[in-house]
Amino acid sequence: MKIISVDPFYLRVPDISTAADGTQDTLLIRIRTDSGLEGWGECDASPLVSIAVYCCPMSHGNIININTSLTGETLDGPDDVIRLSDKVLRNALDIQQIQHAYSGAEIALWDILGKHLEKPVYSILAEITRSSDIPHPKLPYASVLFGDTPEDTYSIATELKKQGYRAAKFGWGPMGKYDEDYDVALVKAAREGMGEDGQIMVDAGVVWGTAYELAYQRAAAFSEYSPVWLEEPLAPDAIREYNKLTSMNPGIPIAAGEGCSTYHTAEDLIVNGGIQYIQIDTGRIGGIMPSFQVRRLAEKHGIQYVNHTFKSHLSLSAALHVFATNPDFDLLEYPAAGSQLSQCLVLNPYQIDDDGFVRVKDLPGLGVTVDTDAIRPFLAPVRIEVGGESIFEQSRL
Amino acid sequence: MKIISVDPFYLRVPDISTAADGTQDTLLIRIRTDSGLEGWGECDASPLVSIAVYCCPMSHGNIININTSLTGETLDGPDDVIRLSDKVLRNALDIQQIQHAYSGAEIALWDILGKHLEKPVYSILAEITRSSDIPHPKLPYASVLFGDTPEDTYSIATELKKQGYRAAKFGWGPMGKYDEDYDVALVKAAREGMGEDGQIMVDAGVVWGTAYELAYQRAAAFSEYSPVWLEEPLAPDAIREYNKLTSMNPGIPIAAGEGCSTYHTAEDLIVNGGIQYIQIDTGRIGGIMPSFQVRRLAEKHGIQYVNHTFKSHLSLSAALHVFATNPDFDLLEYPAAGSQLSQCLVLNPYQIDDDGFVRVKDLPGLGVTVDTDAIRPFLAPVRIEVGGESIFEQSRL
Repeated sequence: MKIISVDPFYLRVPDISTAADGTQDTLLIRIRTDSGLEGWGECDASPLVSIAVYCCPMSHGNIININTSLTGETLDGPDDVIRLSDKVLRNALDIQQIQHAYSGAEIALWDILGKHLEKPVYSILAEITRSSDIPHPKLPYASVLFGDTPEDTYSIATELKKQGYRAAKFGWGPMGKYDEDYDVALVKAAREGMGEDGQIMVDAGVVWGTAYELAYQRAAAFSEYSPVWLEEPLAPDAIREYNKLTSMNPGIPIAAGEGCSTYHTAEDLIVNGGIQYIQIDTGRIGGIMPSFQVRRLAEKHGIQYVNHTFKSHLSLSAALHVFATNPDFDLLEYPAAGSQLSQCLVLNPYQIDDDGFVRVKDLPGLGVTVDTDAIRPFLAPVRIEVGGESIFEQSRL
Repeated sequence: MKIISVDPFYLRVPDISTAADGTQDTLLIRIRTDSGLEGWGECDASPLVSIAVYCCPMSHGNIININTSLTGETLDGPDDVIRLSDKVLRNALDIQQIQHAYSGAEIALWDILGKHLEKPVYSILAEITRSSDIPHPKLPYASVLFGDTPEDTYSIATELKKQGYRAAKFGWGPMGKYDEDYDVALVKAAREGMGEDGQIMVDAGVVWGTAYELAYQRAAAFSEYSPVWLEEPLAPDAIREYNKLTSMNPGIPIAAGEGCSTYHTAEDLIVNGGIQYIQIDTGRIGGIMPSFQVRRLAEKHGIQYVNHTFKSHLSLSAALHVFATNPDFDLLEYPAAGSQLSQCLVLNPYQIDDDGFVRVKDLPGLGVTVDTDAIRPFLAPVRIEVGGESIFEQSRL
């Protein structure tokens, strides 16, 4: 097959707030081949900044855009995806945003390839790495923001429990903005709302920056409520401080990694930071293959891999194919309170089965179908001119 | 003072080639305050992708553009620059391109502040860090690309020697594209052209990726011609491989770092990679303050700090203020073969004094004046629309 088009689409809800809710907008990438197949991927990144990486004029041999690198290229097997990723990244050596932007295209390439080979992506990954191709169910944890108060948080948690969730992560919002008592009250409310049998996770949203001793104190205070992990207590690249925090044995496992935009940044957090859960966003790190490489590294180091997903079920599917075949990595971040946009984005979202687990779709490619009719009202067409010349015109969705 | 405008300008020459020549285009940032002062900075980054970071619509609280973060803010002292940088970076936590894009604005803030306080930037840096404020001369090394053949390289080197250069770095082009004999012939030609008294540096332009053993062999082969360093033999984030290479004692110091887009990536190269020269581009790492922090780290680790500069003398000046006051860091990358655009960009470029050295300008701010009349013909006006609304209109230069 030859790649004939690579088209980004910027979608958003009408009123965007500063809340840490990543489903308020999104960037979809659609790739089409001359065989009539198309694949889709989603980036968890600034749509406009990423679109610029698809169309920016060449600056020199190290700043060449993604469309130039991919259009007209051959795609017949997994080796082609790897070769094309190498080409895209090498051509964009000096574009910092490259991994964020390319993630959607890389995912779309796997989606097309799976349709072409009539295999689910997880099974192609198993084949090329000669590893198990048996998928395992995952326990979905609802991923929600803390309520503004402990009372609101309690209501959210009881509602999630009523909906059948056995695990839920609470994050951002008021956490770390007031004092220790308030932070602990938030965690206590989450625990009480979910009940003693539920699993809760706490996402501090990088609020303590480099203050690892403060993070340690909070972790110790939260441990009474037995969260599965404390997530991102520190800034994404505060590796030395993560090392200090994890060396102090804070009594709760430490999770981080959503900010990783390369395999190496994840390696740094695992090897030098000493974290216990590595959370990778397939829509930021450059797509499925670098995520899979981090999964392998986690296996080697005996720590847990878990997805970071705060977009639609297109992203959720890409994330799940990466680690579906490892039975030990049994938790799945499952966005439970997304915007209307993210909820209507695919025709066949992942359901939670009666036993409370989610299973990867055993269909060609990613196994989800983008609902173009449903998302069309959310399209924000983009038009970019440089030097009087149009360099980006919105394609039809 | 209040910041009243933050304006990016995309400038370029008419015919841009794939050569690794960073002077074919550029992004300038102009900041103006209500006191009538203006400051300028330059990014070594994709102009369009970076402009998008100045104007992209908000996605949520972690994707907020630079203009929103800076416009209307107060700027009276160095603490304000640090506070504003924290704000910009926190607001753009999920924009990967943020450091590349923000570098120009951060540099412009120091430029304004220096004009406001009537002090050169290096002297403000010395004051706030309570370190020496005595500037020292630097030996400029011409930074050029290898010729396509050893013969061409020899001609380039003899020409540089004739122009009075006592040091020159040769990079990219054919290096690593053929075999060992060809690579060695290129280095030999550079040495013979510059003469036995000259200093030469070799820039491999990341050509050996992760193949550290190959890089070791080349380093050993080049050592006969005594280059000051071998630069970027490996990929920017191949830290483990840099560690292996430097642990093998290849007989030539190893230099790297131009790809660093955060303080931490530089720290990683120094502490975990074991390199001997850290090369920081002030126009990529987020500006003057993070560059200065890397300089301090280099001092602590007893390795050499040197600028990476392949843009105009606006960038050169920003780079030089960072390490002007350290007498041990005595080399200065001095672009010797830039485009007409980069050569006309400032009215008062840095000259090489009669003794062969370059001295930082003892003038308020960065000490160079952008020649707006000269660069106006190179302006490529940008216009961006999202959802039918204009979000970027080109300001007048």
